[in-house]
Amino acid sequence: MRHFTSVYDLPNLSEALNTAREIKNNPYGFQHLGRNKTIILIFFNASLRTRLSTQKAAMNLGMNTMVLNVNQDGWKMESELGVVMDGDKPEHMLEAIPVIGRYCDVIGVRAFASFESKEDDYSEKILNQFVQYAGVPVVSMEAATRHPLQSFADHITIEEYKTKARPRVVLSWAPHPRALPQAVPNSFVEWMRQTDYDLVVTHPEGYELDSRFMGDLKVEYNQDKAFEGADFIYAKNWSSCSAYGEILSRDMSWTVSSQKMALTNNAKFMHCLPVRRNMIVTDEVLDGSSSIVIDEAENRVYSAQTVLKMILEG
Amino acid sequence: MRHFTSVYDLPNLSEALNTAREIKNNPYGFQHLGRNKTIILIFFNASLRTRLSTQKAAMNLGMNTMVLNVNQDGWKMESELGVVMDGDKPEHMLEAIPVIGRYCDVIGVRAFASFESKEDDYSEKILNQFVQYAGVPVVSMEAATRHPLQSFADHITIEEYKTKARPRVVLSWAPHPRALPQAVPNSFVEWMRQTDYDLVVTHPEGYELDSRFMGDLKVEYNQDKAFEGADFIYAKNWSSCSAYGEILSRDMSWTVSSQKMALTNNAKFMHCLPVRRNMIVTDEVLDGSSSIVIDEAENRVYSAQTVLKMILEG
Amino acid sequence: MRHFTSVYDLPNLSEALNTAREIKNNPYGFQHLGRNKTIILIFFNASLRTRLSTQKAAMNLGMNTMVLNVNQDGWKMESELGVVMDGDKPEHMLEAIPVIGRYCDVIGVRAFASFESKEDDYSEKILNQFVQYAGVPVVSMEAATRHPLQSFADHITIEEYKTKARPRVVLSWAPHPRALPQAVPNSFVEWMRQTDYDLVVTHPEGYELDSRFMGDLKVEYNQDKAFEGADFIYAKNWSSCSAYGEILSRDMSWTVSSQKMALTNNAKFMHCLPVRRNMIVTDEVLDGSSSIVIDEAENRVYSAQTVLKMILEG
Repeated sequence: MRHFTSVYDLPNLSEALNTAREIKNNPYGFQHLGRNKTIILIFFNASLRTRLSTQKAAMNLGMNTMVLNVNQDGWKMESELGVVMDGDKPEHMLEAIPVIGRYCDVIGVRAFASFESKEDDYSEKILNQFVQYAGVPVVSMEAATRHPLQSFADHITIEEYKTKARPRVVLSWAPHPRALPQAVPNSFVEWMRQTDYDLVVTHPEGYELDSRFMGDLKVEYNQDKAFEGADFIYAKNWSSCSAYGEILSRDMSWTVSSQKMALTNNAKFMHCLPVRRNMIVTDEVLDGSSSIVIDEAENRVYSAQTVLKMILEG
Repeated sequence: MRHFTSVYDLPNLSEALNTAREIKNNPYGFQHLGRNKTIILIFFNASLRTRLSTQKAAMNLGMNTMVLNVNQDGWKMESELGVVMDGDKPEHMLEAIPVIGRYCDVIGVRAFASFESKEDDYSEKILNQFVQYAGVPVVSMEAATRHPLQSFADHITIEEYKTKARPRVVLSWAPHPRALPQAVPNSFVEWMRQTDYDLVVTHPEGYELDSRFMGDLKVEYNQDKAFEGADFIYAKNWSSCSAYGEILSRDMSWTVSSQKMALTNNAKFMHCLPVRRNMIVTDEVLDGSSSIVIDEAENRVYSAQTVLKMILEG
Repeated sequence: MRHFTSVYDLPNLSEALNTAREIKNNPYGFQHLGRNKTIILIFFNASLRTRLSTQKAAMNLGMNTMVLNVNQDGWKMESELGVVMDGDKPEHMLEAIPVIGRYCDVIGVRAFASFESKEDDYSEKILNQFVQYAGVPVVSMEAATRHPLQSFADHITIEEYKTKARPRVVLSWAPHPRALPQAVPNSFVEWMRQTDYDLVVTHPEGYELDSRFMGDLKVEYNQDKAFEGADFIYAKNWSSCSAYGEILSRDMSWTVSSQKMALTNNAKFMHCLPVRRNMIVTDEVLDGSSSIVIDEAENRVYSAQTVLKMILEG
């Protein structure tokens, strides 16, 4: 594997899950791979889990790590081609990316949707410049339209907790005070569709995800119906994709509560975190025994370490 | 030792001092302990000495280190229970802390007094959430009411410089342009009271430290009398504890000067740093031969390394 | 070698170039030197290449690295002597520097010209305080008047690309929207004058570099004439040194274009980066085959590693 920007980069998803399991049992067993190899983690946006879990994964593999908060440690980057650079952006991606590629063996990059232009976001303008110009493998630490390390960790977690071969996995929209990108739900749906789960997506009207990720999956607009018989509830807010970046609903009846969870088949509660308590989910659910969000977050180390191991092995 | 938040966490203070001495003589002799162990240093507040000395201590022990400036690298954290999280804090401590605990073997955390509520500060609301939810050992890198790694380094330093079995150690308030927490003086008094020094505390009226730290120690309100026969002058500003967080005095006659030092028994001058020159202490004293502030700061490495070694040994 | 603040610190420039070549061929061959040695990289100003390449160089040598963005991670530093510190600067360099020196074996520091006072900048007030008070070797990662790690990398690059014993190397001013320091051109001229190149400096009137760096080198005010027969074009903006820190020209005819490059002897194009596209140089030149800016940036690792190796060897 060269780059990792979506589930499609994995040569074999089922083997990747096996590798993740193997690494979780033996996290320090592959340190020869990372010796004298350097990864840089580049953040255009804030990060907690991704920052720490990816760093940990790299250190587990014996790699050297460098962290760059581009806008604070460095300066703003120009990404438009052909411009006269007389403004507030002192450096162009066309130089910054290949230079960083000369200093590192792997580049991890986080660059969220800017919401300035759906076309720019959905063409993964920033991430693709890294892939194109880095000269070394690039790992997405959440891009404009996908968060594949998260989805991989989600998959590992569901495999650990599932009690039947084909669990019912429900992605449910939930309310949030700010407009959030669609990266997590896009990526989750795309990833889960690669495996044989009973996948259900539920959200209010107007929150339809892009067909590139949904494929022919049908939306269940009735959250209660969606929750019936569910083995996993995966809650997440996102802003509208069609009315790009807009908040169309603040309907608190979509908050995941004990009443909602009672409709399920004793489902486990999942969320990528950070989560807004009593907006996305009630304290009662999040603090209850059905919540597996901390285990899910822990698996971020193993999804990252699996990806890095595969990249280091070429 | 599991957590380190005050002198009371040390199983045996005198043995800890011996270990510190041993480590200072052989700083790289315990690297087997830290192999494949990761410490995270979490800063809710700025730091120079603590940041660097704790990192150095961990590296001396062969640990992997990660640094997180929460508010800049990540986002603001909610610490209130039961709130609807619709404001500017995207994540609750209840998730952030256990997640970080999954990524690390030891958590160092700095969270100063907020001065919003004496009750919150003096109940060590933030630090205690870490202790409660981390699932791994927690080391205070200065909390609301104590700075125990500093006090430990101070103790090491006094032991190195003392010329008699029971030196006279004077903690003196001194003026400062801003309202500072009581963590350093609280912690210093509490710590020093565990050993057989002639401990004296002097400050203007209104600056009495909390009885939890002072115990039955009496204040000497006359700074000149306090200085008489002193072997160590430990200067520090703090804001009022009773009129919580207020500046009650800007009296520059409390500045430690050569005239004041002449009253002592050729005392050594100490300060935790950073120090305001010509407010807390004159240039003449700080640049003179009695000042041991740089040696004191160096000992921050060895107090931290001793604590981490004890934690790694379980 | 103890400190590295200019070309004059190198015992022998030609041997240093040989060492750089050797290190580039065998970057991990000297890790015994850095074992249990710690370097800190202190930034008073933003940095991308210097930050990453110096960190990489240190890691290649097996050193532990710490990074400090002073103003964000810590606080503002006072550098004036004798002041009453009642303002916004909580710590004096007189404490901060020796303390950091106790925690580290080597200090790298970046402190740009402040443009508040030419005298302060040209006396290298900040850098010299580090040299004076650190107690350990200090490496300039760009100071007020020089950027020697950059000049060294430039020299390595010219040696790699030159096709004749004595190439014509042209430093050309070019337009820029902001007032930039003279550190890079100062340092480049000073460094290149130590070797037997046909060195030419060209810029508009009023942009004369300080004679400390220029020596008896004459300026060619006609850019076209300067470019004739050039083997290397080294473009850079700087502000006026005599009208200190002022922008005297925004003349876009100085932008390095294909037409300008056509005047040369098939010259290579160099720049220290970051570079303003279509201000300093056109897209066409920068994206063309004559541009060697990425190779030049890569050599920052090897100039830094050579310097650190020499320091570690004492």
